[in-house]
Amino acid sequence: MLVVMSQQATSEEIDAVVAAIQAKGYTARLIPGGERMAIGILHNKGAVDASHFLGLPGVKDVIPVTRPYKLVSREFQPEDTIIQVGDVAIGNGHLTLIAGPCAVESEAQCLNIARKVQRAGAHLFRGGAFKPRTSPYSFQGLGEQGLKILTQVREATGMPIITEALDTETFGLVEAYADVIQIGARNMQNFSLLRRAGRSQRPVLLKRGLAATIEEWLMAAEYILDGGNTQVILCERGVRTFAHHSRNTLDLSAVAVVCKESHLPVIVDPSHAAGRRDQVIPLSRAAIAVGAHGLMVEVHHAPEEALSDGAQSLYPEQFEVLCRQIQSIFDVFHPSHSVKPEETRNA
Amino acid sequence: MLVVMSQQATSEEIDAVVAAIQAKGYTARLIPGGERMAIGILHNKGAVDASHFLGLPGVKDVIPVTRPYKLVSREFQPEDTIIQVGDVAIGNGHLTLIAGPCAVESEAQCLNIARKVQRAGAHLFRGGAFKPRTSPYSFQGLGEQGLKILTQVREATGMPIITEALDTETFGLVEAYADVIQIGARNMQNFSLLRRAGRSQRPVLLKRGLAATIEEWLMAAEYILDGGNTQVILCERGVRTFAHHSRNTLDLSAVAVVCKESHLPVIVDPSHAAGRRDQVIPLSRAAIAVGAHGLMVEVHHAPEEALSDGAQSLYPEQFEVLCRQIQSIFDVFHPSHSVKPEETRNA
Amino acid sequence: MLVVMSQQATSEEIDAVVAAIQAKGYTARLIPGGERMAIGILHNKGAVDASHFLGLPGVKDVIPVTRPYKLVSREFQPEDTIIQVGDVAIGNGHLTLIAGPCAVESEAQCLNIARKVQRAGAHLFRGGAFKPRTSPYSFQGLGEQGLKILTQVREATGMPIITEALDTETFGLVEAYADVIQIGARNMQNFSLLRRAGRSQRPVLLKRGLAATIEEWLMAAEYILDGGNTQVILCERGVRTFAHHSRNTLDLSAVAVVCKESHLPVIVDPSHAAGRRDQVIPLSRAAIAVGAHGLMVEVHHAPEEALSDGAQSLYPEQFEVLCRQIQSIFDVFHPSHSVKPEETRNA
Amino acid sequence: MLVVMSQQATSEEIDAVVAAIQAKGYTARLIPGGERMAIGILHNKGAVDASHFLGLPGVKDVIPVTRPYKLVSREFQPEDTIIQVGDVAIGNGHLTLIAGPCAVESEAQCLNIARKVQRAGAHLFRGGAFKPRTSPYSFQGLGEQGLKILTQVREATGMPIITEALDTETFGLVEAYADVIQIGARNMQNFSLLRRAGRSQRPVLLKRGLAATIEEWLMAAEYILDGGNTQVILCERGVRTFAHHSRNTLDLSAVAVVCKESHLPVIVDPSHAAGRRDQVIPLSRAAIAVGAHGLMVEVHHAPEEALSDGAQSLYPEQFEVLCRQIQSIFDVFHPSHSVKPEETRNA
Repeated sequence: MLVVMSQQATSEEIDAVVAAIQAKGYTARLIPGGERMAIGILHNKGAVDASHFLGLPGVKDVIPVTRPYKLVSREFQPEDTIIQVGDVAIGNGHLTLIAGPCAVESEAQCLNIARKVQRAGAHLFRGGAFKPRTSPYSFQGLGEQGLKILTQVREATGMPIITEALDTETFGLVEAYADVIQIGARNMQNFSLLRRAGRSQRPVLLKRGLAATIEEWLMAAEYILDGGNTQVILCERGVRTFAHHSRNTLDLSAVAVVCKESHLPVIVDPSHAAGRRDQVIPLSRAAIAVGAHGLMVEVHHAPEEALSDGAQSLYPEQFEVLCRQIQSIFDVFHPSHSVKPEETRNA
Repeated sequence: MLVVMSQQATSEEIDAVVAAIQAKGYTARLIPGGERMAIGILHNKGAVDASHFLGLPGVKDVIPVTRPYKLVSREFQPEDTIIQVGDVAIGNGHLTLIAGPCAVESEAQCLNIARKVQRAGAHLFRGGAFKPRTSPYSFQGLGEQGLKILTQVREATGMPIITEALDTETFGLVEAYADVIQIGARNMQNFSLLRRAGRSQRPVLLKRGLAATIEEWLMAAEYILDGGNTQVILCERGVRTFAHHSRNTLDLSAVAVVCKESHLPVIVDPSHAAGRRDQVIPLSRAAIAVGAHGLMVEVHHAPEEALSDGAQSLYPEQFEVLCRQIQSIFDVFHPSHSVKPEETRNA
Repeated sequence: MLVVMSQQATSEEIDAVVAAIQAKGYTARLIPGGERMAIGILHNKGAVDASHFLGLPGVKDVIPVTRPYKLVSREFQPEDTIIQVGDVAIGNGHLTLIAGPCAVESEAQCLNIARKVQRAGAHLFRGGAFKPRTSPYSFQGLGEQGLKILTQVREATGMPIITEALDTETFGLVEAYADVIQIGARNMQNFSLLRRAGRSQRPVLLKRGLAATIEEWLMAAEYILDGGNTQVILCERGVRTFAHHSRNTLDLSAVAVVCKESHLPVIVDPSHAAGRRDQVIPLSRAAIAVGAHGLMVEVHHAPEEALSDGAQSLYPEQFEVLCRQIQSIFDVFHPSHSVKPEETRNA
Repeated sequence: MLVVMSQQATSEEIDAVVAAIQAKGYTARLIPGGERMAIGILHNKGAVDASHFLGLPGVKDVIPVTRPYKLVSREFQPEDTIIQVGDVAIGNGHLTLIAGPCAVESEAQCLNIARKVQRAGAHLFRGGAFKPRTSPYSFQGLGEQGLKILTQVREATGMPIITEALDTETFGLVEAYADVIQIGARNMQNFSLLRRAGRSQRPVLLKRGLAATIEEWLMAAEYILDGGNTQVILCERGVRTFAHHSRNTLDLSAVAVVCKESHLPVIVDPSHAAGRRDQVIPLSRAAIAVGAHGLMVEVHHAPEEALSDGAQSLYPEQFEVLCRQIQSIFDVFHPSHSVKPEETRNA
């Protein structure tokens, strides 16, 4: 349920509506819009009776919310969310490119790759310090040492950094170093981690689970927003199907649906979807064409020597090609918004 | 196995190799290339011994074929196949748009839609006369009357027509009227129908089955080529997965893989993939961006009254938007090939 | 819609209701029950007004049918269908075992296997004469010669035979030789073949398609019943999923659902589901335990030399183990119905 | 790599082999067998050279391990693992029944259900105190209060209790109350949680993820065993597919594969697989018939009032029917092992 206040509503009237909502045992959440305030009603058990609020002073309308997700829905907030990370804006007409290696391996490796992807057009640098691995015997990442390397990259290039937090124990550590915190596909329904992310000041990139429906994905984001953190970037990375010519099946209709259902920015990770280098550029073009707000792409200066996921990492010169091609496609749809990579870098 | 002749090989030498292949009980298939002849060896049971042919006069090389599909593979034919339908070229840098209603309902309906999609940029007109329906109680199409209406559209507009053949009994009838014959997703492994299509002079559009792997799809095309018909257009139309926000999950990585594995043109049907009108334009953009050679889109002048699949049919004015957007994307990748719709129409 | 006649209804009253249904442009289908006649209304476009029929003499009730499938539903016929093939009864408490090689290879092979599976407890003999093959270059079956071999098996052992019809062209040929005609998974929505099967006097075994929903499967059966052939045996054989430890994922909940929704017998093919010999016996036990009316199992006397699907074929001695184990499980649920293999054989 | 010691090997020889393994930088893990000791080599990067160990005194053989999972594999331990929980044995010929409500709601509810399922034959009592919920607005469980209620059930009935641990924060709390700790499907690759479970003294029930391959599932168990906890019970609970007649598709071939690949006990949860009460009994029968070592079933005294998952919970009298049917099936395969419920209870 959403209580829409009139444009002329005073802050006293707003406070009175909040108090009336709380008196019923619900949670009231202020949702400022461009021209007027709305107040979301959350944590109600069972249906809410609109008549309780319709007659209150300053109330223009009471709108039932038809979706199980509330805060992430366009019903609660029609306007696109834009997330600001340093000089980089994500969402609503901005094209955001995130690039870097799968895993942080060394300072030299990261700086080498970072300079190359930045030159090509990347806005954020990615690299895993804590790696979720299927096998307990695989390389698990450099941990805090990896986080320190990432901050060196940020200092050297000016690019904000994004890296994954695997669990609540190390979340605070990651938060202390990273500009954007990634929650991986396998953790999409790790609700404790989502609640922890909800208490963070950092933007969170939330990957879609391998077998997650759109509703489950948006509900996972809802956990974060319900915790108080409204800066969530969704990331489609392919789902698991019978098809095995790519590691996962990139579901681009999900991008179209999410853009319609939610105000949150949504980007695409073609590298994990494909699992094969030769599909990354075509899928990147398709992702931008379908309307994604950006890409997260794995790039390695020597993929054949990478400690993880080398087979899907682009060579830096391929990433340059990718940037040129997607910028052209993006310009077709967003002529006014088109942001040249040079202008968004502060290095 | 592929026997590659030298550029200087005489026709007598070629004949001698063919005879040597046949003497072993295999089938020889001539595969003319740009500069030299190759001879494919088919229908061998077990491995072929290259030494039988390597020493013959005029033989430059004998190349093992690693794929289970032969004639459709780039190993057999590295150059893109271009299929000519009247004035329309399909494949290799041409952008082909097929549009029309799901089912042929009446002459007035078809002419109305045809004129609108032609004006917007469509090259071929689609419409079902024989409809495959899940229920025996649903509208099954107008049959031959529908085929006649399609030819009236061709006469009136000059657009070649494409329509589905459901079975071997009515294949000849469809062949007599249509310019391109469609084999639907449910029939992708109807091997008798594929063999019948292999004996046709008409180009065949072969849709991917709902749960078909790339290999099965290419093998289905191989049936048609093995029958003697080399004019096959592949059509990705979504696969069945757990996801239900779209009717099927459009698998655009399949387009990338097929373009790499096969010389045949591949187009995308976003309408059946989505099953929802609001996803058709975004998925069309993505399909062209990933590298598809064209689209087949359902358009209806009054979708809410359509006898089948109205929910996924575009309004004509939406199809105009679609054409503008995809042309711009296509131009990004194929600057020299870009064919304006006007130039390809003979109406 | 189902018009239920009273027990006392005369044949004149029944005729009058049929006439009234036909006068509305619908099809009337008599559905004799244990104690009274019902009349199904088919081929209506749009809703049927019950009041047209409620007042007619002899009419006890008019029941709306909520499912898209009619003739196959328990709404139309609550009692289990039993299909009689020679001395073998299929459905409703009978346990039916079908066994034999994937493909008919020779008379000696078939007789050898047939004698062994019969001794172990099989009631019907299976073997493919026309084989649907993914590749045009694979062994396609012996054709009519294979059918003749099957009849020799029937003569020698008394076991009825079941074999696949691939297309309408060869359906009549198969019908002339076989006791039960199989329609394969890839042909489940080959509607022309289904209509042809609907005109046959032979029982039809209809396999579930690789990606078919229960509704699509039952609708495919509805095509056959709508054509006039009520003898349909459904066969679950696994669906295609992301899982690759078995060739397909056997969906045993489908058996439970179909038994609830439909009166038709349903059996399970564990061989094609598993694609691996070592899973066939456990899955067979599970299929009987879930409530299937029988099994169709591939058995070969020398699987390693089989012309197709050897890897999933049981050795005859394994089939003996299977028969013993499933009989014990079946007896748990059907103490009174338990039919000893010996009693059902006429050899 | 597995170093197999001869039967006569002394403890000094075993120590020397361990030391030799550690000297190479690997981890040595003692794996006592029925008649002789084996020593597993773990955490090697790259291949291990067998010749380092083959010549050492007391070494009988060095066996390469072909699977990515080690400690859970039958290569490392051929004999079935039996897990003892109080008087209840799980695995290797014992039939274990776990039953109870989805969520702990009150002491009265739990005691009511517990007495009924115990009388019917259940060996362990299940109930969720911490509930993983798709929506942040759904009932999240009673937390520690729920754990206390579970211990009251244990005191009153003597049945060991199993309940889920959602995260590392609350793992210790759950561990303090529960006899068996469940890790849910969504957490199957929550590697921090798996590592925490690896340090626990309690048996762990590890559910298969919704889209997990067998290898991923066994690797998740490997995390727990690698941490030192060898008491892992695997639980198949259905995977996500296109099929929607059941909530998930129960994959019983997975049970057959896991029993072949691993020595760990594997049980089945038909309630979450089906999501519908009417499929639970048939699927339970199938699970036991395929070879599962037990079942975990949701039972509620008043399912229509349950706070979660009521639609899939059995009525107590249905659970009685289930127990009778599966015991009969189990007896068919395990005549000597058959354990009457009465004998295993200490109440």
